[in-house]
Amino acid sequence: MKGTFIREKVKVELKNPILIEGLPGLGMVGKIAIRYLAGQLKAKKFAELYSPFFPYYVVVNKRGGVRLLRGNFYFWKNETGENDLILLTGDSQAQTIEGQYEVSDYILNFAEGHGVKNIITLGGYRQEVEETPKVVAVATSGELLNKALRAGALPSPAGNPIVGMAGLILGLARFKNLHALCLLGETRGYLPDPLATKSILDVLQRLLGIQINLSGLDEDIARSREIVERMQKIEAQREVQARRMRKAEEERMTYIS
Amino acid sequence: MKGTFIREKVKVELKNPILIEGLPGLGMVGKIAIRYLAGQLKAKKFAELYSPFFPYYVVVNKRGGVRLLRGNFYFWKNETGENDLILLTGDSQAQTIEGQYEVSDYILNFAEGHGVKNIITLGGYRQEVEETPKVVAVATSGELLNKALRAGALPSPAGNPIVGMAGLILGLARFKNLHALCLLGETRGYLPDPLATKSILDVLQRLLGIQINLSGLDEDIARSREIVERMQKIEAQREVQARRMRKAEEERMTYIS
Amino acid sequence: MKGTFIREKVKVELKNPILIEGLPGLGMVGKIAIRYLAGQLKAKKFAELYSPFFPYYVVVNKRGGVRLLRGNFYFWKNETGENDLILLTGDSQAQTIEGQYEVSDYILNFAEGHGVKNIITLGGYRQEVEETPKVVAVATSGELLNKALRAGALPSPAGNPIVGMAGLILGLARFKNLHALCLLGETRGYLPDPLATKSILDVLQRLLGIQINLSGLDEDIARSREIVERMQKIEAQREVQARRMRKAEEERMTYIS
Amino acid sequence: MKGTFIREKVKVELKNPILIEGLPGLGMVGKIAIRYLAGQLKAKKFAELYSPFFPYYVVVNKRGGVRLLRGNFYFWKNETGENDLILLTGDSQAQTIEGQYEVSDYILNFAEGHGVKNIITLGGYRQEVEETPKVVAVATSGELLNKALRAGALPSPAGNPIVGMAGLILGLARFKNLHALCLLGETRGYLPDPLATKSILDVLQRLLGIQINLSGLDEDIARSREIVERMQKIEAQREVQARRMRKAEEERMTYIS
Repeated sequence: MKGTFIREKVKVELKNPILIEGLPGLGMVGKIAIRYLAGQLKAKKFAELYSPFFPYYVVVNKRGGVRLLRGNFYFWKNETGENDLILLTGDSQAQTIEGQYEVSDYILNFAEGHGVKNIITLGGYRQEVEETPKVVAVATSGELLNKALRAGALPSPAGNPIVGMAGLILGLARFKNLHALCLLGETRGYLPDPLATKSILDVLQRLLGIQINLSGLDEDIARSREIVERMQKIEAQREVQARRMRKAEEERMTYIS
Repeated sequence: MKGTFIREKVKVELKNPILIEGLPGLGMVGKIAIRYLAGQLKAKKFAELYSPFFPYYVVVNKRGGVRLLRGNFYFWKNETGENDLILLTGDSQAQTIEGQYEVSDYILNFAEGHGVKNIITLGGYRQEVEETPKVVAVATSGELLNKALRAGALPSPAGNPIVGMAGLILGLARFKNLHALCLLGETRGYLPDPLATKSILDVLQRLLGIQINLSGLDEDIARSREIVERMQKIEAQREVQARRMRKAEEERMTYIS
Repeated sequence: MKGTFIREKVKVELKNPILIEGLPGLGMVGKIAIRYLAGQLKAKKFAELYSPFFPYYVVVNKRGGVRLLRGNFYFWKNETGENDLILLTGDSQAQTIEGQYEVSDYILNFAEGHGVKNIITLGGYRQEVEETPKVVAVATSGELLNKALRAGALPSPAGNPIVGMAGLILGLARFKNLHALCLLGETRGYLPDPLATKSILDVLQRLLGIQINLSGLDEDIARSREIVERMQKIEAQREVQARRMRKAEEERMTYIS
Repeated sequence: MKGTFIREKVKVELKNPILIEGLPGLGMVGKIAIRYLAGQLKAKKFAELYSPFFPYYVVVNKRGGVRLLRGNFYFWKNETGENDLILLTGDSQAQTIEGQYEVSDYILNFAEGHGVKNIITLGGYRQEVEETPKVVAVATSGELLNKALRAGALPSPAGNPIVGMAGLILGLARFKNLHALCLLGETRGYLPDPLATKSILDVLQRLLGIQINLSGLDEDIARSREIVERMQKIEAQREVQARRMRKAEEERMTYIS
């Protein structure tokens, strides 16, 4: 394999499709969102993206088979609305700068080739999170941005970098005949975060005018909350102990000097 | 040298050849296996692979000569069985992501060009090892996998990554007219591991229906066991000492605070 | 995007233009200088440079929009003097060796295409700075260098490396029909340094025979001085404390041994 | 600059030339040797090698000028002997694996284009050095190796890697119509080592049948010996102090526990 390529396994005719991308990243928000969405919509895989910029290992599946890391494109026929959907998720981000630009480029070309006009990328946004994580939006057009705000997203503070392909796809879209929106869910980011994912999907369903049952995420959310609480307790104990040791050391210093 | 290339030194006609690959990796299992196999079968070298993705040094040989790092292809004519063998080992893995994909690609093309239909890659698998290391298998086809299981390999747990060219070759095989099997021997991985190698070769000889005298590895196994035992003794002493120092320090803390 | 490219948004006819480059680097001297200069001259943007060698993120602007990292070319029509100006600044240096050479090359080709004969690059030069930072100059021709010295720059000590595109552009200019001068302002380098910038712009205005009001930088200079003084105070306290602890420890040692 | 290139500034006709290469490396042995040799022979520069794989900075020269990092080719007409010489040294090694292979390739092609049949590369070899550093040799042909041994070099132990272009040039020579010899001088390697250089040049002059006055290196050797002795004294003091502290600490431990 000398460069990135996309393998189309099924030819599909799509009606004004919107491409929604969510790859691994902060809190795995984008990836969990696309996987949940594809599951709920019973979307079907129709293409795979391979790249020598993905990590150089293969993964073993349940039947003792094996495959390269890849991106997966799914489609969903929207019987009642205007826009069919193409969903994209995958195993990994590209591992070098040039790879990031190259793979993003291939995704945009693939989208254009399927008549896509609008792309939505999903990701996480590092923040100490309150009860309900916020969703912030940026876009290549004011129209798209306004749609997202009406659907419940907040404007992103200026100056923030959006790292990785969720951002690059927007940056590169302007060189094509494409508009793109990025939705980022607030997340602490160090653990898979189904709560941030739920917030994003909630905005997304209003934005797309479709209904997704999000209660399937609640069990994951409960489990993830438990893990966080346990980690915080350990952290707090460690703090107390460290403070005590610092104090003992200071006293010893005072005593000696 | 601008890219990877393979230099064929002798033209050989091979009968339904199977390519078996073992490059340096965990416990050096793959490399030791191919070298032992080539030695036992008196296989002959017929091609070399060079790549600007190998490390940028040369090695000095016994007669004051010098050579680039490379991969070596050997062939063995199987007088009594169905399949001739091509054996591949070498000095190094490719050093960058793109190099890993490129070199794997060249190996597959070379295999195809010689009429290979099946490839077997060998490697190590990190695990605390019991008396006899297990051998696990993954494959691109159920048929190949079943052959390996019948020969004594176990199915690999799902989700495990197989890093490096032993894995990539399987991942890339599906884009060619090739099937591939990967056998991984359990090994602690931090030292050359002739015991894991023996387990793999044992499976391999049953799988190929050939007989290899494996007793030549026993001396290496004994020596390697000695080294491990000595290292474990040193480690244990270090543990004791560290525990004593921690205790002394804690007592001092208690005393001062 | 497969390689660096420049997007010309407006066609402009320029009169013997000089290109002045200032990208992020030591003390941000070059970038602050170009931004200030472009603001004072009311220069207009006419081209953008994009490259897959810039970091792989996008930045969010005030209206919730988003853009790739890039270089920006501005032009200024010099009504009373001989030379129009092209000003170049941007978000980032190229991130790999090859990227540094490639992007510098594109800048030189762009300059040549617009009839540029002389290029001036701006940057910082790490030095403990006295009251007024010095400006040192190097050039690809004695004539250009002498102009800079007459305008108040000092000759650079030999042997110093000039890292990044401010230097590479000079090194590569000799392979084109171009001359280039590099002005470096003394700076501690770890914070944006408007004082070094002012020194450079002062030399530059004499060199170009134009007048720039530099007083707009004074507020930034005052603020930056405050920050430095506060940091030095903290540093001094830390020094005192560290010395005291070392002394205590030594006494304890003496006491015990 | 998109790739490595060589710029020939003067056309020269050379008689059976031998190329001798010495780039920066261990103890700077190769580079110092070529510079000294070129100075003694009054060799003239006739070509320069540039590469985007050299570090991305430029160096400032004495007259306030500036230049890219590069390799320099010198020639020397041997009036009395059989072989003219081409000498190659430069500012830097290539900075990436692929760059190492590419630049070495360009050097070999350049050599071939000038009718070179034999190449000699010079470098250092890490070793605790005795009074007179040894010189070891490896070669692509037994004939060349024997010449080096007769001139006072020793055979290199097998298995040693030769890192960088001094080695790669030998490794790549076999794909061309070229033979190559590598001479490595024993050096501690962490400081420029004129003593190792002298040993190498001593072998080289016998090998080439020319006479070089090597006494010009003696002053550098004396100065370098002084520096090493001063560093060893400091190191020894540090050792004593560290031992004393460890002892004090152990006693304290014993006392407390």
